Amino acid sequence: MIRFDCDYSEGCIPKILERLRDTNFEQNPGYSMDPHCERARRLIREFCDAPKADVHFLVGGTQTNMTLIAAALRPHQGVLAASTGHVNVHESGAIEATGHKVLPLPSLDGKVTADQVREALDAHFHDPHAEHTVQPRLLYISQPTENGTIYSLKELTVLSAVCREYGVWFYIDGARLGYALAAPENDATAADLARLADAFYIGGTKVGALFGEALVLTAPGLKQDFRYLLKQRGGMLAKGRLLGIQFECLMEDGEYLAISRHAVEQARRMKASFLQKGWPLLYDSPTNQQFPIIDRHTMELLGEKYSFDIWADLGDGRTAVRFCASWATKPEDVDALLSDIQTLPEGGTPHC
Amino acid sequence: MIRFDCDYSEGCIPKILERLRDTNFEQNPGYSMDPHCERARRLIREFCDAPKADVHFLVGGTQTNMTLIAAALRPHQGVLAASTGHVNVHESGAIEATGHKVLPLPSLDGKVTADQVREALDAHFHDPHAEHTVQPRLLYISQPTENGTIYSLKELTVLSAVCREYGVWFYIDGARLGYALAAPENDATAADLARLADAFYIGGTKVGALFGEALVLTAPGLKQDFRYLLKQRGGMLAKGRLLGIQFECLMEDGEYLAISRHAVEQARRMKASFLQKGWPLLYDSPTNQQFPIIDRHTMELLGEKYSFDIWADLGDGRTAVRFCASWATKPEDVDALLSDIQTLPEGGTPHC
Amino acid sequence: MIRFDCDYSEGCIPKILERLRDTNFEQNPGYSMDPHCERARRLIREFCDAPKADVHFLVGGTQTNMTLIAAALRPHQGVLAASTGHVNVHESGAIEATGHKVLPLPSLDGKVTADQVREALDAHFHDPHAEHTVQPRLLYISQPTENGTIYSLKELTVLSAVCREYGVWFYIDGARLGYALAAPENDATAADLARLADAFYIGGTKVGALFGEALVLTAPGLKQDFRYLLKQRGGMLAKGRLLGIQFECLMEDGEYLAISRHAVEQARRMKASFLQKGWPLLYDSPTNQQFPIIDRHTMELLGEKYSFDIWADLGDGRTAVRFCASWATKPEDVDALLSDIQTLPEGGTPHC
Amino acid sequence: MIRFDCDYSEGCIPKILERLRDTNFEQNPGYSMDPHCERARRLIREFCDAPKADVHFLVGGTQTNMTLIAAALRPHQGVLAASTGHVNVHESGAIEATGHKVLPLPSLDGKVTADQVREALDAHFHDPHAEHTVQPRLLYISQPTENGTIYSLKELTVLSAVCREYGVWFYIDGARLGYALAAPENDATAADLARLADAFYIGGTKVGALFGEALVLTAPGLKQDFRYLLKQRGGMLAKGRLLGIQFECLMEDGEYLAISRHAVEQARRMKASFLQKGWPLLYDSPTNQQFPIIDRHTMELLGEKYSFDIWADLGDGRTAVRFCASWATKPEDVDALLSDIQTLPEGGTPHC
Repeated sequence: MIRFDCDYSEGCIPKILERLRDTNFEQNPGYSMDPHCERARRLIREFCDAPKADVHFLVGGTQTNMTLIAAALRPHQGVLAASTGHVNVHESGAIEATGHKVLPLPSLDGKVTADQVREALDAHFHDPHAEHTVQPRLLYISQPTENGTIYSLKELTVLSAVCREYGVWFYIDGARLGYALAAPENDATAADLARLADAFYIGGTKVGALFGEALVLTAPGLKQDFRYLLKQRGGMLAKGRLLGIQFECLMEDGEYLAISRHAVEQARRMKASFLQKGWPLLYDSPTNQQFPIIDRHTMELLGEKYSFDIWADLGDGRTAVRFCASWATKPEDVDALLSDIQTLPEGGTPHC
Repeated sequence: MIRFDCDYSEGCIPKILERLRDTNFEQNPGYSMDPHCERARRLIREFCDAPKADVHFLVGGTQTNMTLIAAALRPHQGVLAASTGHVNVHESGAIEATGHKVLPLPSLDGKVTADQVREALDAHFHDPHAEHTVQPRLLYISQPTENGTIYSLKELTVLSAVCREYGVWFYIDGARLGYALAAPENDATAADLARLADAFYIGGTKVGALFGEALVLTAPGLKQDFRYLLKQRGGMLAKGRLLGIQFECLMEDGEYLAISRHAVEQARRMKASFLQKGWPLLYDSPTNQQFPIIDRHTMELLGEKYSFDIWADLGDGRTAVRFCASWATKPEDVDALLSDIQTLPEGGTPHC
Repeated sequence: MIRFDCDYSEGCIPKILERLRDTNFEQNPGYSMDPHCERARRLIREFCDAPKADVHFLVGGTQTNMTLIAAALRPHQGVLAASTGHVNVHESGAIEATGHKVLPLPSLDGKVTADQVREALDAHFHDPHAEHTVQPRLLYISQPTENGTIYSLKELTVLSAVCREYGVWFYIDGARLGYALAAPENDATAADLARLADAFYIGGTKVGALFGEALVLTAPGLKQDFRYLLKQRGGMLAKGRLLGIQFECLMEDGEYLAISRHAVEQARRMKASFLQKGWPLLYDSPTNQQFPIIDRHTMELLGEKYSFDIWADLGDGRTAVRFCASWATKPEDVDALLSDIQTLPEGGTPHC
Repeated sequence: MIRFDCDYSEGCIPKILERLRDTNFEQNPGYSMDPHCERARRLIREFCDAPKADVHFLVGGTQTNMTLIAAALRPHQGVLAASTGHVNVHESGAIEATGHKVLPLPSLDGKVTADQVREALDAHFHDPHAEHTVQPRLLYISQPTENGTIYSLKELTVLSAVCREYGVWFYIDGARLGYALAAPENDATAADLARLADAFYIGGTKVGALFGEALVLTAPGLKQDFRYLLKQRGGMLAKGRLLGIQFECLMEDGEYLAISRHAVEQARRMKASFLQKGWPLLYDSPTNQQFPIIDRHTMELLGEKYSFDIWADLGDGRTAVRFCASWATKPEDVDALLSDIQTLPEGGTPHC
């Protein structure tokens, strides 16, 4: 069985394990106060062209999202997010468990528009009974989205402008950030994110690390006392060096982008094959996740050899499924998939 | 500088890094549903002689404590703990952030007695105005305590009996559990803990792992839906295999106890040296942490070459400090310390 | 200016003030442990034909909802509610502030169907990744709804059956319960609610009292320690007698239904007048709130003399507005309104 | 049975019921936006000589405390309070339920000293591991305390100075404020409180009202969006007029102080009688609560005719009990008590 069902099936880039081994008996202070974390922070600031940013390391995405949001909001404030956003649907209520409502904006492709955001903010701040409702005070987006789509630089720029106009924090979940940065269609750099957002994170777990996310805080108002919040939400790793070392490895020598490019290339090979076969795509994703729509028979045939994620039952006998590539995807595994797809019988999988 | 200030200065036992390397390109499902976690769970159940226990893996101690406590309590219920307990003083309010009060019981050595617990429960349940106060519903202890002391089997047995009599959960924080199990004075096994407590965790972070804690749930009433809680509190590691692999390594071939014994032996060498030098000990610890009381001049002399933790300023010119040994402590580093202590000038550090 | 904009513009039925005066210098124990509360509880149990129900008195609706929900749910569980439900939109995030997500079900008229509920529960409990999402564990409905509509006995019966099938609490917000019970179209009694729901409240604030809601708990699983929750959420009134006395007055001699009937009659007079005038109704409400759709000019003319609530701008020059009647509505004020409506110029307010 | 066990056994000053009756059919907007609340706010600002203060009305003390504290603190911050403080012991964990720890300072008489506060703040802000602990950010005191004692103007001044030096909010719980203001020993006026504290509340429930507390916010940093918090915590009364009318009545013509003086006088008559009888007092209270220490036989004899509160079992056969006077205490009831005390047999109740 070859797994394409998620982008964290393997461990990490071998360089990280080597570095962990080489540094294993160094004696370091705990809680990310060690030289590796220091250097990783410096490399990340350079990567984002954000010399004044605070950089914190956390273990996972849900932890990062809930910690940032809890740090940013007062109790009556909530989070604007796409209805499909990870914080709205796939964190078991982690945001609500910190006391905050997620205010969903309808989305078909995982993205929200500046007009939607402005409309939601206007609706609230012009409501004479606003105080009976949750005050939107942070915009959460993901880049790329959970659906593989990406925001253009222009889209990010107007989202940022709306947020600043209304005094709303702009936060970007970059669990798969490398795969957006590496997409040929992408025109928003890490430096753009640092400039336009108040906070964002650079995902490690899904992009080459064993685990770990680097949260970049650029807004001065979000920096104060953040380490207390880290500790309180269970996100302060005792051996912080593990996070520092991993991000050193990812940020050195363009590694993060290089491994991301590999993943995107493999995903695009799949995409081309799906399209050539006449399979519609649920979303037009330029990144490492691809969402072909296939019929039951095709699912069964592919399922004998490959694992993939069931994304949505379309109710007409067809299912949207998800294939993921990652930094670890072997080209030969994709070769095999492509070859098997070509030999599938024609005629199934009706078009949209 | 040789570090004795904490027990997580180094990485992990080399076997773990080797195993991570050997399994790095295995494709595994996420979220601790992989074969390594399955096997680690099995080994842990055997280690605790608790075939029906549920075992969950988390990344760190604060996360484990707050997740278990949030899962166990209704909103009006609180946690009985020694005033010195980690949940009361060193988790940045993580327990309160889940909505629950910690009800401290005075403690000088990190331990609480069954009489204290019974008295607190009686006081509450006989109070005609009980409903105006927080209902104690979980007893938190740590084994060994934050002060290095340990509970005897007899003490654990009576604590368990009181808890069961009053319907109170009994939970043991085992961040340094190996160092209690390996102490010559110890007579309570992991199986005793599983039998007497409703939940406890086997610490990995401080005992040989890169990170990770194994939470053992024996009470049926604590098991339901626990994985939702794990996810909600940020404790469900995407690549759960990392935890499984580490606990496989620790639980195989008596490794956990073997490395713990090493730490305790090194700590006891220090203890003997402190006592021989005439330094009082703040607590009589049989485990890996030692707390000598020394004067300022001694602190300065030792501080030139060794790092240790400032524990408490006694206000009379003397300070209680903490020296830690761990699985990673090199005997030659302890040799050096002992030798240097012997050469220190006599006369300082007045007795208690 | 005659106010029809809300149903709590006046104080209370005069009998309550008289009773407060007559009992003012009685010395009573606090916290609803007095004889008035005892008697009110008895009268309410009779009213609901629920001799074993627990009855608690709270001050307001948001407080009642959040206290019940916090008492009923574990941290990973959420509330199914109509998207229009009070807990979802008009409580400033009170439910989320207790840590729980509201899971909205689309609704145009304020009601949810058993099919919607079953579908949501199936979707969750059949989801292989359910533990990454919020577990629906309580169904919140309001009777009448915020839109004035009511559930039939049959609808309540099937909602109850679905909830029991899935082990989900069924809770009914009865802020305006009297106005549902008094509607000629209604066929669900208070006893039906007690039989079908696990908890519901009988609203006093909007139905004749100065303030106060009577929460009826019929499910044994919701009863334990509820008074701790009351206290913790700020809902335990020191002079609980005030709530007892008010509910004594409301529950004696059919008062609650009698005053509710008056309100419904006055509202139906308005409704007939709106329809006669050719104004569409946004919802077909049989209760005390009416929602005619009128044009801007009509709004201005009526607004000179009457206050009403702006409910929704329909975007085509027309607005849905809300007129409320209550126990306190003077028939002569409705006479005036009806007479003024008749003299309004024809031709405005286009039909849907 | 004559009740001296608490200071809210009766309803309210008759004037309030009259005023409620006279205004009952006024039509007022809800949520404290009515003319009565406006006027009450104005009167309170005058009473406190705080023309720029925001004034909010809430129903009860626990609600007021938890709402103010939740509004004031970020998640990692906690409340310094006397170990005996209401927020620490008698609110069923309401503060923790908003996510915040109460950091108790030892107190025998209900008061904390500026030295204690400074020491706690120094300990935290000089702790190199501060981020692992809860950050003290609000000082809670009560005036008078739960033990009847009062802070002098000088004490309040230095507490305020310490708080301002460290950037810590200073909040005063005035559940029984009138009884402090009316004490002959008192030298701190409401204006002093408004000047020295960042927020405090003027208690109505225990001082003449049916219910209600007036929260005065003087610090600009606490004012923003407070009404959202009010609503979220269940504290926004629909018929806010009820609170406005009550505080109009209390604040007019010196009523609040006049009724408080009556209570204090009656309490002092009891105190004199206790002392004359040779009964020790647990606290030297100049306000409406008195805490004599009596033996079991005395308790039984008094208990036949009078109710009083059991405060603390001293463990030597004696019990500290609480007698309360209030605005409603009848002098003839105190006469009876005093007369009965005089006739009690001599010899019991040993001295401290």
